[in-house]
Amino acid sequence: MQDFDLIVVGGGSGGLAGAFRAAEHGARVALLEPHLLGGTCVNVGCVPKKAMWLAGEIAAKLQLAPALGFPIPRAPLHWAEFILHRQRYIANIQTSYRRRLDEAGIVLTPTRGRLLDARTVECENGARLRASHVLIATGSRPIRPPIPGAELGGVSDDFFQWRAAPERVALVGGGYIGVELAGLLQALGSQVELFVRGEQLLHGFDGELAERLAEDYRQLGVRVHFGRSVAALERTEGGVRVRDAKGGLSERFDAALFATGRRANSEALGLDAVGVEVDGDGRIVVDERNATAAAGVYAVGDVTADPALTPVAIAAARRLMDRLFGGRDAPLDRRHIPTVVFSHPPLGKAGLTEVEARERYGEAVRVYRASFRPMLYALADRPQTSLFKLVCVGDERRVAGIHLLGEAADEILQGFAVALKRGITLDDLRDTVAIHPTSAEEIVLMR
Amino acid sequence: MQDFDLIVVGGGSGGLAGAFRAAEHGARVALLEPHLLGGTCVNVGCVPKKAMWLAGEIAAKLQLAPALGFPIPRAPLHWAEFILHRQRYIANIQTSYRRRLDEAGIVLTPTRGRLLDARTVECENGARLRASHVLIATGSRPIRPPIPGAELGGVSDDFFQWRAAPERVALVGGGYIGVELAGLLQALGSQVELFVRGEQLLHGFDGELAERLAEDYRQLGVRVHFGRSVAALERTEGGVRVRDAKGGLSERFDAALFATGRRANSEALGLDAVGVEVDGDGRIVVDERNATAAAGVYAVGDVTADPALTPVAIAAARRLMDRLFGGRDAPLDRRHIPTVVFSHPPLGKAGLTEVEARERYGEAVRVYRASFRPMLYALADRPQTSLFKLVCVGDERRVAGIHLLGEAADEILQGFAVALKRGITLDDLRDTVAIHPTSAEEIVLMR
Repeated sequence: MQDFDLIVVGGGSGGLAGAFRAAEHGARVALLEPHLLGGTCVNVGCVPKKAMWLAGEIAAKLQLAPALGFPIPRAPLHWAEFILHRQRYIANIQTSYRRRLDEAGIVLTPTRGRLLDARTVECENGARLRASHVLIATGSRPIRPPIPGAELGGVSDDFFQWRAAPERVALVGGGYIGVELAGLLQALGSQVELFVRGEQLLHGFDGELAERLAEDYRQLGVRVHFGRSVAALERTEGGVRVRDAKGGLSERFDAALFATGRRANSEALGLDAVGVEVDGDGRIVVDERNATAAAGVYAVGDVTADPALTPVAIAAARRLMDRLFGGRDAPLDRRHIPTVVFSHPPLGKAGLTEVEARERYGEAVRVYRASFRPMLYALADRPQTSLFKLVCVGDERRVAGIHLLGEAADEILQGFAVALKRGITLDDLRDTVAIHPTSAEEIVLMR
Repeated sequence: MQDFDLIVVGGGSGGLAGAFRAAEHGARVALLEPHLLGGTCVNVGCVPKKAMWLAGEIAAKLQLAPALGFPIPRAPLHWAEFILHRQRYIANIQTSYRRRLDEAGIVLTPTRGRLLDARTVECENGARLRASHVLIATGSRPIRPPIPGAELGGVSDDFFQWRAAPERVALVGGGYIGVELAGLLQALGSQVELFVRGEQLLHGFDGELAERLAEDYRQLGVRVHFGRSVAALERTEGGVRVRDAKGGLSERFDAALFATGRRANSEALGLDAVGVEVDGDGRIVVDERNATAAAGVYAVGDVTADPALTPVAIAAARRLMDRLFGGRDAPLDRRHIPTVVFSHPPLGKAGLTEVEARERYGEAVRVYRASFRPMLYALADRPQTSLFKLVCVGDERRVAGIHLLGEAADEILQGFAVALKRGITLDDLRDTVAIHPTSAEEIVLMR
């Protein structure tokens, strides 16, 4: 006898989306989550990060205001107060999840789960639940690199525990998390140094935009160190120093943060026992329909090798449930997934980078650029510019990639991502009447 | 003998765009403009309006900041200083136009022009220029209604002369200009009352969004009076009062502004003589290729009945020149033209309103809505919400209209306008992965 149609192990965004969608289709669902509902995204990821980014954006506007004619004094953010607002916002989301779970009749069990076989999950107290389908959505966690003194530095989870801004912060890692934390800490008044192993920020994004962003960060006051592998952290009076691979020793920092990678939470789930495959990085191997090697066992989100993006986990989970319980089989199309880095200013991409396009299409690639200063910065006589870039292919100039750096890029990208996915040429952009004066219009006016 | 291939009468956005594009195609071009280059848009329209709107947005952020944890005092904008920045920005645009005209070899003549025949334009000093084609792009001007005391009120051109904020302002007219001026004045600290003849703001835009915007305005402090036809302005000590059609008399205002309409600048151009037709409102009648009834004479922009939008004038002028001098005949597609009202928050549309769609498609219309509070306002515990709306048609749910009200709507709309024009269904939106957390993602997540 099955107790449930579906057991979801993990109550992050993907697990919740799967549970809700399955219940909508009439499935009996149990959700196992030992900690906080909402997982990384809601508790120590997208949501509090965006909140801090918004505070950073407001701080930047306050700094700009005197140059426009608003006579205000410098006023650093009162972190403790802001974090009350942030955490209240998060608490409201959790309350809403609990209410929705109740309304949907989903059984929420505050426990970890371990698979005994492909249809049986054991709770921490020994209770066993059975279901015809099991969805694993346990997410991932930030990890420290294996270097001496690593314990002296925090990770993003620790950052979200901070209740005040350290004066001087070392950030290790030039990926999107390092770039986001560096930007918002600097915008909120810390002196940030960013240690990047390679020679470019944001591997996987457009290189030209990443270079321009590094410039923006320098102007914001971030000290960006390229080619600086961090070999150790060393304790010093009231702080920490960074030792690099060449032996160089930094000045003192009040805090150090690692943004050097995350690891899938795939341990202790009993995966071996049921034949679920895991790759060398501990990520559950799934097919395009998010099925694992074990029949009836599925996985979504950061515990898999899917792009580590909340909307991907949610979309994959919903489509999986539509297939299992709704009779609609439409696997998630993983091409052209748009994504935005909440840097200052934000940076986003949809589709191929110029490098990827040239690898695939060679000489047939044409690149179009718009570099301009948004009116607000021109009025305040600030140097911040935007750089928008289109990667087109062939004589028809099919748009294969859209890359945006600048004020409002985070909000501009979504609609263009829809158009890109639908399939457009440069002429489709040019044939659309511009909305004036905006930043977004620069994309349809590119020549 | 022809002196030129093209004479452009009027140096606004449309005229300039036509002149530049013709010159790119190798045409010899003369441009007649007696006043300031850039016309309404650059000098007394889009550009200074957007600048004031940006100041209003910053003022709103400064007001919000204390609720987030930034301890700043109230600090009203120092108008005179801001307007220096604004006018410097405009002067830079004009300098850039002059440089580009010189580079393109376009002859700029600071004079009005009058057609003697379809190939001859007479300047104010009596000089005559001949060309094979004449483009009229003289724009329009704001007008006062024919009521007693109208001279006591200003129009938008006057607003852009202001060097300080009046304490109390009456705004007459609920169209986009009235709504924009009311919003930014209130945001910048004036007490605004908006007198609207009908029962809704922004005729031609989605009614539900317009209603929500009226709520937003009330919360911002604007007093919105619907069904109040203004019959007269009356002088009072140190100000003016508004007399409505029912005899009611308002309190005293420091200033009154009419935003009750504009009139095409089609007089004194000699149009009759050459057989150019003009409609009952004085607008030059053109076909979809912007040709007038007189062979060789064309018109673009606000002097015609085309939508009074700078990007429409520019696009029409460029396409006309591509046809006349570039051998490419692709008339401007006037369907789905997106447009944004720079209200607080901004409101935009692309495609059909719900009402228009129901008139055309009746029962086949389906409407989808997302109403939500952007994170920033939730963090600050402010009531401001966004309302996004999709108008879909038929079983395939083809998207016929997109309507956005809320923070960042001005920047979000452009990409969706591209997609709408290309042709999309609701599923195309839903199949695009969301960018989280943004406002724009609400459009692809609508259910």
